[in-house]
Amino acid sequence: MTSQIGVTGLAVMGANLARNLARHGHQVVLHNRTQARTDALMAAHGGEGDFVPTTSTEEFVQSLQRPRSILIMVQAGPGTDAVIDELVPLLDEGDIVIDGGNARYQDTQRRTAALAERGLHFVGTGVSGGEEGALNGPSIMPGGSDESYAIVGPMLESIAAVVDGTPCCTHVGTDGAGHFVKMVHNGIEYADMQLIAEAYDLLRHRLGLSPKEIGDVFASWNEGDLDSYLIEITAEVLRHDDAATGKPFVDVVLDQAEQKGTGRWTVQSALDLGVPVSGIAEAVFARALSGHAEQRAAAQKVLPGPQVELDPVEDRDAYIEAVRQALYASKVVAYAQGFDQIAAGAEENGWTVDRGALATIWRGGCIIRARFLDRIRQAFADEPDLTTLLTHDYFRDAVAAAQDGWRRVVTDAARYGIPAPGFASALAYYDGLRAERLPAALIQGLRDFFGAHTYRRVDRDGVFHTLWGDDRREETR
Amino acid sequence: MTSQIGVTGLAVMGANLARNLARHGHQVVLHNRTQARTDALMAAHGGEGDFVPTTSTEEFVQSLQRPRSILIMVQAGPGTDAVIDELVPLLDEGDIVIDGGNARYQDTQRRTAALAERGLHFVGTGVSGGEEGALNGPSIMPGGSDESYAIVGPMLESIAAVVDGTPCCTHVGTDGAGHFVKMVHNGIEYADMQLIAEAYDLLRHRLGLSPKEIGDVFASWNEGDLDSYLIEITAEVLRHDDAATGKPFVDVVLDQAEQKGTGRWTVQSALDLGVPVSGIAEAVFARALSGHAEQRAAAQKVLPGPQVELDPVEDRDAYIEAVRQALYASKVVAYAQGFDQIAAGAEENGWTVDRGALATIWRGGCIIRARFLDRIRQAFADEPDLTTLLTHDYFRDAVAAAQDGWRRVVTDAARYGIPAPGFASALAYYDGLRAERLPAALIQGLRDFFGAHTYRRVDRDGVFHTLWGDDRREETR
Repeated sequence: MTSQIGVTGLAVMGANLARNLARHGHQVVLHNRTQARTDALMAAHGGEGDFVPTTSTEEFVQSLQRPRSILIMVQAGPGTDAVIDELVPLLDEGDIVIDGGNARYQDTQRRTAALAERGLHFVGTGVSGGEEGALNGPSIMPGGSDESYAIVGPMLESIAAVVDGTPCCTHVGTDGAGHFVKMVHNGIEYADMQLIAEAYDLLRHRLGLSPKEIGDVFASWNEGDLDSYLIEITAEVLRHDDAATGKPFVDVVLDQAEQKGTGRWTVQSALDLGVPVSGIAEAVFARALSGHAEQRAAAQKVLPGPQVELDPVEDRDAYIEAVRQALYASKVVAYAQGFDQIAAGAEENGWTVDRGALATIWRGGCIIRARFLDRIRQAFADEPDLTTLLTHDYFRDAVAAAQDGWRRVVTDAARYGIPAPGFASALAYYDGLRAERLPAALIQGLRDFFGAHTYRRVDRDGVFHTLWGDDRREETR
Repeated sequence: MTSQIGVTGLAVMGANLARNLARHGHQVVLHNRTQARTDALMAAHGGEGDFVPTTSTEEFVQSLQRPRSILIMVQAGPGTDAVIDELVPLLDEGDIVIDGGNARYQDTQRRTAALAERGLHFVGTGVSGGEEGALNGPSIMPGGSDESYAIVGPMLESIAAVVDGTPCCTHVGTDGAGHFVKMVHNGIEYADMQLIAEAYDLLRHRLGLSPKEIGDVFASWNEGDLDSYLIEITAEVLRHDDAATGKPFVDVVLDQAEQKGTGRWTVQSALDLGVPVSGIAEAVFARALSGHAEQRAAAQKVLPGPQVELDPVEDRDAYIEAVRQALYASKVVAYAQGFDQIAAGAEENGWTVDRGALATIWRGGCIIRARFLDRIRQAFADEPDLTTLLTHDYFRDAVAAAQDGWRRVVTDAARYGIPAPGFASALAYYDGLRAERLPAALIQGLRDFFGAHTYRRVDRDGVFHTLWGDDRREETR
């Protein structure tokens, strides 16, 4: 199929997607506010495919066949609105505007509605994989109308990463669905990295392994169930020495992690949806804590740790395996929570999101790509309405098998004062989910006591209030 | 001082505040959209003080001396805006509108600005203590101009709870400051209740105590450092038997806790401010989890717990003391986090908030009232710029003394599968804060690897990037 697309915004991500499109046989009409970027792309890569450089927004739009497909790759927020405002008056009914930036999904919903009023399609599209993925095959999460996907879907699928013959691109749902799932993807990425960091920290401080030895451990883990891009590059980073000092690279890096918006947005959205994403929240908070240099300096000086000697670990390999189990089980919990959020977001926004299809397109191209995601794909293929990943046979058994190591590691972290908020929180979630009775009943009692907030009963329907300040009769409300 | 105030909105909270004001010698002009409420209040309590009932908004406003002081007690959100819109055209420059509802602080900021344009003062006021507090002495957190506080402050102080001769009311700061700190107060209340619930759950499932026995434990705790309203009513609730079944009350209450907006808002705001409030977040998520009945039912059926026998506890009293220590230390962490959020919110919004004054007014009237808050007041009196409560001598020593029990309980919960997300998360925060090095360094390395996000170094200033895909030289960015 011969097809054509316009790309405006030719910074690294835009330029790489444009090249990826051209290499796959699409004619790519180029535009950038600053002409130099267009010229540079043409000079360096003009021979890679059928590029049509343009010098103005008008020329850009006129160079495209109707219905036009235009991919915007500019900074999220007001930058995107500015480009849309400039484009829209020049477009015709049925034209398709694709936003491949990291937009908030609510902005995408607003833009979709605004463009629909003018007969235009808007396709808010999550793109994961960084610069390298953009060039060689990202994971692509477009949200929009069926009509627009019929036109731009095949183009996007043609440039996506491919796993087992399946492109890592699927029509996620309408309006904000694509950017919503991209947000949750990034939240899961936060949790993944935090769990990896905790595993490293435990191997370092409990077992006394060197970064290089831990790098080797991660490399071996990458041969098994944990096989994933992040585990692979963790091995690379840990084995790397700093050239200037000769020290392990990880020891010369300042231990204050930064957070961009998407992790935070994920947790904020989950709170609105009432979905506990404690794994992602603890990851975002761990980064925030790390950045509070002044508090940390004050605390390091005066806060005592546990007054116990490190109990020597007799079987080093068994301990490494326990840490692997903690990492694996906590990861399952984080993904279960993330997929819960996707289901709740879809319900709230009226999207039909196929969670299995998402797991499928996250198997390649994106930062969280992992063998693991094929298991999730399989789980949703087996049971499309699965209420939580944790109860699917495969994950239930996998977590059950990992349970002893997981508990051992969380116990050890608490005893020896090694912070492992991700492992501990995931375990508490697991134990909370499977608990026959939760002490939430007491909380309901307290709320009824001080605020007459009422409660329900286990043995009959209705809403009740006890006259705590009076004779403690129970009233039906 | 003779003074006068108008109260519009005479549901329970408004009626009780009006009665409280009248009892303290203020003339109270009454108004309610539905006349019946005004009539009912006059019929039942008209003799308690100097009430002036009115039958229309116009009459209400005309009955007040200028500058008028008007307290709005209606449902937060659009309800409040509707009342404001009706009042404002009738008011004169210098009049003061007080919103005593549970408004979002951003709404209060917006309303303050809108009323200021018309020369009116707006006093967004947090009121805690429920119906009983409203009548007999709440904790009051007004935010607004100095000029307006000079007029309404003495009235509000006169009806507040009193502790050690000091009224539980202080001028928190300008515009949204009062509602902001009320929001954080409620977030802390979530954490407090979750920690109490976990302590109960551990005493029940680890030690096998009955609700009544645990009620006695809480009653004894209420004699010590934990002395507080919530501990006191926990004892009451746990000792109460259900009349219909004869069972312990807590066992007939459905274990699905509800969450209103403020806990969620607190965490969402903390995420924007970059303040880790993991204690509050875990509390909100624990409630959310408890409400996911379908997931819980599925999980209870198939998720295995730990395959270990409960190790008998040899010294029961020592174990109870360990649980008390876990509760106490976790509570200190939750308050430290909450006060951090207040400091960050004040900084972000340009408020001058005296954290010690807040601790002072939270000692009485409100739901989290506790002896403990006098310690916090003292800590900020000693060091007004304290970077975290945890490093103040008193709390450092208190947590250090509680540390062994805290670690024992978190360890036990993990080993035996009793969910204790609040205790575990607080401990991980404590250990993270005091850690000399955090694995955040590894996270920064990973982010630089996959996204060229750069990092800083421990040994020199600057921003760096390693050419991971190339020869791994380090570049300065």
